[in-house]
Amino acid sequence: MDGRRYLDAISSLWVTTVGHRVPRLDAALRAQLDRVAHTTMLGHGNRVVIEFAEELARRLPMDDAHVIFASDGAVAVEQALKIAFQFWTNQGVSGRDRYLAFGGAYHGDTVGAISVGDGGFGTDIFDPLRFPVLRAPGFDRPDAIDVAVGLIAEHAHRLAAVIVEPIVQGAAGMHMLDPAAFAALGDACRDHDVLLICDEVAVGFGRTGTLFASEQCGLRPDLIAMGKGITGGYLPVAATAASARVFDAFLGDDLGPRTLYHGHSYGGNALGAAVALEHLRLLDDEAVLDNVATIADRFATALDDTIAPLASVRAIRQHGLMIGIELAPPSDGLRWGRRIAAACVAEGVLIRPLGDVVIIVPMLTTTADEVDRIVAVVAAAIAGLTPSAAGPIAGPGSDPRVGALG
Amino acid sequence: MDGRRYLDAISSLWVTTVGHRVPRLDAALRAQLDRVAHTTMLGHGNRVVIEFAEELARRLPMDDAHVIFASDGAVAVEQALKIAFQFWTNQGVSGRDRYLAFGGAYHGDTVGAISVGDGGFGTDIFDPLRFPVLRAPGFDRPDAIDVAVGLIAEHAHRLAAVIVEPIVQGAAGMHMLDPAAFAALGDACRDHDVLLICDEVAVGFGRTGTLFASEQCGLRPDLIAMGKGITGGYLPVAATAASARVFDAFLGDDLGPRTLYHGHSYGGNALGAAVALEHLRLLDDEAVLDNVATIADRFATALDDTIAPLASVRAIRQHGLMIGIELAPPSDGLRWGRRIAAACVAEGVLIRPLGDVVIIVPMLTTTADEVDRIVAVVAAAIAGLTPSAAGPIAGPGSDPRVGALG
Repeated sequence: MDGRRYLDAISSLWVTTVGHRVPRLDAALRAQLDRVAHTTMLGHGNRVVIEFAEELARRLPMDDAHVIFASDGAVAVEQALKIAFQFWTNQGVSGRDRYLAFGGAYHGDTVGAISVGDGGFGTDIFDPLRFPVLRAPGFDRPDAIDVAVGLIAEHAHRLAAVIVEPIVQGAAGMHMLDPAAFAALGDACRDHDVLLICDEVAVGFGRTGTLFASEQCGLRPDLIAMGKGITGGYLPVAATAASARVFDAFLGDDLGPRTLYHGHSYGGNALGAAVALEHLRLLDDEAVLDNVATIADRFATALDDTIAPLASVRAIRQHGLMIGIELAPPSDGLRWGRRIAAACVAEGVLIRPLGDVVIIVPMLTTTADEVDRIVAVVAAAIAGLTPSAAGPIAGPGSDPRVGALG
Repeated sequence: MDGRRYLDAISSLWVTTVGHRVPRLDAALRAQLDRVAHTTMLGHGNRVVIEFAEELARRLPMDDAHVIFASDGAVAVEQALKIAFQFWTNQGVSGRDRYLAFGGAYHGDTVGAISVGDGGFGTDIFDPLRFPVLRAPGFDRPDAIDVAVGLIAEHAHRLAAVIVEPIVQGAAGMHMLDPAAFAALGDACRDHDVLLICDEVAVGFGRTGTLFASEQCGLRPDLIAMGKGITGGYLPVAATAASARVFDAFLGDDLGPRTLYHGHSYGGNALGAAVALEHLRLLDDEAVLDNVATIADRFATALDDTIAPLASVRAIRQHGLMIGIELAPPSDGLRWGRRIAAACVAEGVLIRPLGDVVIIVPMLTTTADEVDRIVAVVAAAIAGLTPSAAGPIAGPGSDPRVGALG
């Protein structure tokens, strides 16, 4: 509106992958529009959704994946939770009505999603609406997986599934664990016959360096929830994939008692599927994941050189292109995260913090020059707005939930 | 794929309003694509969403409406439920943690939505995940509203909100009440200070003859959930509107404790908003609702003349362009609804039943000739597949949930 230009360093909240105004994605959308925008998948079907599902399934780290679509990522999680639940009842197993989730987990904002999600962000007030969940520690504790493994062994007979954000808990403030740590989680689920749901809504589609974060962890989940980057950031498409074992548990009489009665009007929207299909091909054709590796390294070096030495920086956490710079304000309410983000935006770099963690989630196609610009702008904002050595600065308030997601 | 043509008499499951391949909607989408497909509304904004929200707000039957977006209609319901809940806690009122909902209600498939929704469709297995709800009778009982009014008076101090599908419970099998009956519901909510949520996902955007069904009921809801027809059936957009009173209860310190921490990555998608905005203008410019009145009358006459006399037809229910033809199979498992739908599809008319209720939800722009064709095809299918007088026909099975939604 005012003729200003911005570098989107948060990928429009972690959804855009290969940039805005991508010719190939625009063309795919226009071509589908010349066919049809949408026809229902409830009892009918359309070609582009089937083609997309097939292309997606062969890239998923699971056996013979089948896919059900929706539009909001939170709903992909809800679908996974319901499928995991019904998986047991369909087989006549009773009492498998609990989930194990992690501290700091964020799985979306619908009631099922906030149930498996941890508190915070003002969600505690909704406790009367939430179902109970078994809770392991968050990824800010290095023993989170170990504790989870113990809980699985102890409570397996009550557990429908474990739900986890592989590698990175983004909304928690970019807390992360070594991918190698997750193998024990997969082993525990397999050994104790508990389903594993990987929530790849935020970490999927290249953000961590592989198409799916589960791959780096060596995980073969029973269910995967997807959203955000699935259309390259163009259109709302969410998907839940189920492994052959899970899918098979729903086979039976046409509309019989094993049926999953779950479907959203726009699940399998043709326009979204057309863009999502072209996006998968584009990621391959242009070797986008190779660029992720290259610029993730460049970010690591630049952050280490320029930002780590700043007095107000408590920690820098990075995996692939998910980056959190945790600041250490000497008192609550200083809103350093929010102020620094505002200063970056004023310099033409879109940044959005999570409390006092400055978040950088750039496009997968970010160039070396753009890496340098983003880090320089963030460094200058931090240096300009925080003291060179932490001292007793009084804050204007006491609410720590500054700049929270949502 | 096979060169066949179909008349979509279910509007791709109740979402398409003015037809597939609509030049004005196509053009709006292409024009927005030339600007940008999506930028986040979480902490940022984009022009077309604001313009759409303004145009939508002035058409809503509520005072000074404000809108929050998502993509799946179920999420519009979840948002309404959470907003209603937090409305009370924000004002320091405790114990308002229940909802009143109706028998036969369908509000979507996520955990919050199936909690307020009634059982059926195999959802009872998820009871351990659902929060408890106070339940009035369904619209198949003429006293449903009266009973609800009594329950509101009795339980007001525990109720956060009442949620209702105004006029028509679609997924229940097109059960409907006289719009005039709903005034008492609105009065009871106002008298006892309970919020009223109208779920207009299915009935909104012209399907019942007015843009919103609440209008015919004389209701001024506190919250309205929207989806399906909002983009004319092109793209997933869902929206929850709140009245000024509700909105004001969330004002306070920036990111303070009154904040609603709820947001979906693609809420306010620019492509969806562009289509939705053009769709609102098109409905006005082409006086589409006038056509709804005309062809609803033509349907009523044709159904009465051609289908009502058939021996296997138990009841015909119609309001506007939401039509259910309830069949009376002499035993379970005959799957009349499903067989008749299949016969219609074979004749080039897309029909999808709900159990043994044959559903017709045609486009708002259906022509007189199309009305006649739809009714003739459905009548022929019923006459061809059911006996001319109901008799003791043995069914192949006993599951009544045949042809269910989802």
